[in-house]
Amino acid sequence: MTTQLTLIQIDNYGPWTVTPEPRREMDLQTMQSRLFADIAQFLGSRGGYVFFSRFDNMIAVTNGIGRAGHTALQETIRNRYPVTVSLGIGTADTPAVALDEATEKIQAAGSAQDEGRTEVLAGDPLDSDDDSTVHIAHFDVNDATGKYTDQLNEFDSFIHIERSYASLMEYMREAHGALSFFVGGDNIISVCPSLSPDDYQAAIDHVESDAGVALKVGVGRGETAHDAGYAAKHALEDCRYEGTSVEFDQPPATTGDD
Amino acid sequence: MTTQLTLIQIDNYGPWTVTPEPRREMDLQTMQSRLFADIAQFLGSRGGYVFFSRFDNMIAVTNGIGRAGHTALQETIRNRYPVTVSLGIGTADTPAVALDEATEKIQAAGSAQDEGRTEVLAGDPLDSDDDSTVHIAHFDVNDATGKYTDQLNEFDSFIHIERSYASLMEYMREAHGALSFFVGGDNIISVCPSLSPDDYQAAIDHVESDAGVALKVGVGRGETAHDAGYAAKHALEDCRYEGTSVEFDQPPATTGDD
Amino acid sequence: MTTQLTLIQIDNYGPWTVTPEPRREMDLQTMQSRLFADIAQFLGSRGGYVFFSRFDNMIAVTNGIGRAGHTALQETIRNRYPVTVSLGIGTADTPAVALDEATEKIQAAGSAQDEGRTEVLAGDPLDSDDDSTVHIAHFDVNDATGKYTDQLNEFDSFIHIERSYASLMEYMREAHGALSFFVGGDNIISVCPSLSPDDYQAAIDHVESDAGVALKVGVGRGETAHDAGYAAKHALEDCRYEGTSVEFDQPPATTGDD
Amino acid sequence: MTTQLTLIQIDNYGPWTVTPEPRREMDLQTMQSRLFADIAQFLGSRGGYVFFSRFDNMIAVTNGIGRAGHTALQETIRNRYPVTVSLGIGTADTPAVALDEATEKIQAAGSAQDEGRTEVLAGDPLDSDDDSTVHIAHFDVNDATGKYTDQLNEFDSFIHIERSYASLMEYMREAHGALSFFVGGDNIISVCPSLSPDDYQAAIDHVESDAGVALKVGVGRGETAHDAGYAAKHALEDCRYEGTSVEFDQPPATTGDD
Repeated sequence: MTTQLTLIQIDNYGPWTVTPEPRREMDLQTMQSRLFADIAQFLGSRGGYVFFSRFDNMIAVTNGIGRAGHTALQETIRNRYPVTVSLGIGTADTPAVALDEATEKIQAAGSAQDEGRTEVLAGDPLDSDDDSTVHIAHFDVNDATGKYTDQLNEFDSFIHIERSYASLMEYMREAHGALSFFVGGDNIISVCPSLSPDDYQAAIDHVESDAGVALKVGVGRGETAHDAGYAAKHALEDCRYEGTSVEFDQPPATTGDD
Repeated sequence: MTTQLTLIQIDNYGPWTVTPEPRREMDLQTMQSRLFADIAQFLGSRGGYVFFSRFDNMIAVTNGIGRAGHTALQETIRNRYPVTVSLGIGTADTPAVALDEATEKIQAAGSAQDEGRTEVLAGDPLDSDDDSTVHIAHFDVNDATGKYTDQLNEFDSFIHIERSYASLMEYMREAHGALSFFVGGDNIISVCPSLSPDDYQAAIDHVESDAGVALKVGVGRGETAHDAGYAAKHALEDCRYEGTSVEFDQPPATTGDD
Repeated sequence: MTTQLTLIQIDNYGPWTVTPEPRREMDLQTMQSRLFADIAQFLGSRGGYVFFSRFDNMIAVTNGIGRAGHTALQETIRNRYPVTVSLGIGTADTPAVALDEATEKIQAAGSAQDEGRTEVLAGDPLDSDDDSTVHIAHFDVNDATGKYTDQLNEFDSFIHIERSYASLMEYMREAHGALSFFVGGDNIISVCPSLSPDDYQAAIDHVESDAGVALKVGVGRGETAHDAGYAAKHALEDCRYEGTSVEFDQPPATTGDD
Repeated sequence: MTTQLTLIQIDNYGPWTVTPEPRREMDLQTMQSRLFADIAQFLGSRGGYVFFSRFDNMIAVTNGIGRAGHTALQETIRNRYPVTVSLGIGTADTPAVALDEATEKIQAAGSAQDEGRTEVLAGDPLDSDDDSTVHIAHFDVNDATGKYTDQLNEFDSFIHIERSYASLMEYMREAHGALSFFVGGDNIISVCPSLSPDDYQAAIDHVESDAGVALKVGVGRGETAHDAGYAAKHALEDCRYEGTSVEFDQPPATTGDD
């Protein structure tokens, strides 16, 4: 088993946002963003990655972080925020399968809007003798500044980025069970199973024909999300210097080697 | 003139993120989210709204906030972050037109990746005797928790929300020059010109047939984004209690009255 | 009346920190510091100053900030923190008298550890036609880096700074009803009534003989704490360049002129 | 060797605060407090403690945190703040001796206001086979709410707390080489060598006669600051229930056993 994913769900958040009456939107935005930032620091300094996805539900890659780390995260949030979080952990070669497991563990404990269901911690992290290999692909848009940011109004630039993201996220999910997240600017990070350079080229070709946006991608792997993601960033820099569209930080894995 | 928009652009951000070599992704995520949160607090406590859009470029509704407020925002960011921001201000009845103006003002001062272009403040806020009317529509998904969050894995829930957002953002932009932003959970906020209930129903119908997701919407207006947005939240609560799909906090404007 | 002070008290904080059992100290430190930072941003961007004093009780100079601003501060804290705050407002020429009034207003509503006493907002801000003049004195230690930081271990440097602070705070409180706060490094800021250069020189002489630490001071006045404090910082820079120990940003007030 | 201390020094901070001209005080306060809060989270979630002392110089107890953790802290600050930090590490049975070593390591690399001296990392953490024992004493004031907070104005309450702190910090430093820090409310935390109940009673007696304030203390020990500090908090709760003034979480060490 390779990827360990954690679903982070704010407990009973929807009702809280409108009780006793709707709360100021900018306070909600501030609270959500800072909660995400704190989780990013907590997990990030332990080699993990977290993506904000819907903010009330976040998805984290937590290879290398055990049960004690998860409990500590719940505790520090409870001590500093007006909300609490439930955590579900899943592990599998295919990220979507790991997330299925993580999500089911939380769902089994009750609805996201069940007042009595708080601070669930369900599912099992990898054992220290399990294989831990994460594959991260870091995509960006070719010359986004020159083609969009410096040419169009910001919303229209954003529409192009958003289209490429919507197209890529659905393609990678369906073709490979990979999970893709927009992380700001013109950057998309995908948590992937082991894929070939041709698989990545096909994804790029799909987005170009479907959404009209040209992407490139750097791919890395490692024992933690940070290791894999950092290798992917270096590979993406290689694309920039070489003018190529797919680069691996190390030779792609032969089938079955991890 | 009604809507006042401010484009907030981090100066030369792309190059900074990879200089001297790529920075840790979770540090970038933390920095971006906290910068957004601080801007949300600064503008939000003055009646404004800000949306993170691409994080390196954010779009704010700033009716009621003048030049001094914009300068103060630039100063406090410079004093506390490793980056600076440029601001462009535009005003128009149609949000997309206001954003065109705001964006052009910044673009005229140089590229987003021009090292010498920092802390631009361009464009003019509304005068105190100008009409200031903001229209905000707050959409959400009908029973998102029951249909998605408690049923599907989190990424697949997110795909549905994302599809509805992509569909709505493009429709509202093209049909009305409105700017729509995902704000977390199953919520989308649109900054709109004056529109009729039929216009909103048509948007909802479009998303249902295009993306298969059922939305409802509360609409408000006011002198500031907060006033309009807060009225919209109350109208959305009315939808919830009445089982309706479009509610205005007050009778929709007769053509031409604002 | 000149100085407007606001006492900010976290409601029922002591019991919360040990319920249901003691909370992690570093979480408490984080929560307190961020709450203070958020209040500093909120008030600071409106011309106010806040000092952390005991963290569970903070003292703010709020000239220019009315009832609506105070209510907005309470709302944004309630929406984003696990605690709430009560606010008491007092106004007087002498800061200690203003604080007496502010404190009594909160005490009259119940004990700081009364569970039922939350979000008190008591006392009256200055009217817009009242005189609003704040006097701020900004002290620092002569050559603190050369004499302490680069010579002693950090705790022993800190002991010298702390001694000078303890000596100054008691002297200024007793002699003039002024309120003095350590603000980091070797800096102390005093909120003062109208005082003469001789009064300040006497304070510096007292600290030198009592605690053996040589201070200098810049003094400013203005309609808000920021205006006065910023003028004081410039006056302190004048001390640095001139080698003097007391500088006023403008000629000291003739008795009675404000 | 038992206690491992890290001195955290913001590089060239004084000059930065007034370049090119003085920065807004509330921005400095916000930046300092958030930097402290981030360090508290980073070290705290690894079992460490940090005290803000002068804010531009902070003192941390870092038993259990190695060189890699220190480097990671420097990196995340550099990526998110406009300032950088230097770190000096020292280890000894007596906290003041450990801090001497930590401070000398940084001073040897240059002045705190030397522009060219940035991100020093000097000194050696404990080896994994060294003894790691931290002693933490958590003091508070008997009935501070009833005697001070609910009776006096906030500044006068603060003066009493401050007096007790000044008295205790100097006594513990001179008598035992212990380092004591005010942590908010009526709480003081001391990092101590191994001391007897009589030693603590003598400290309390000294403060009562010197400053007129009655303290009590809980004492704990552990392999990390958090373990020791958490035990101390529980012991302090014991004082509260028993009405005693000195409690150890476990029987005090026989001389020489750690």
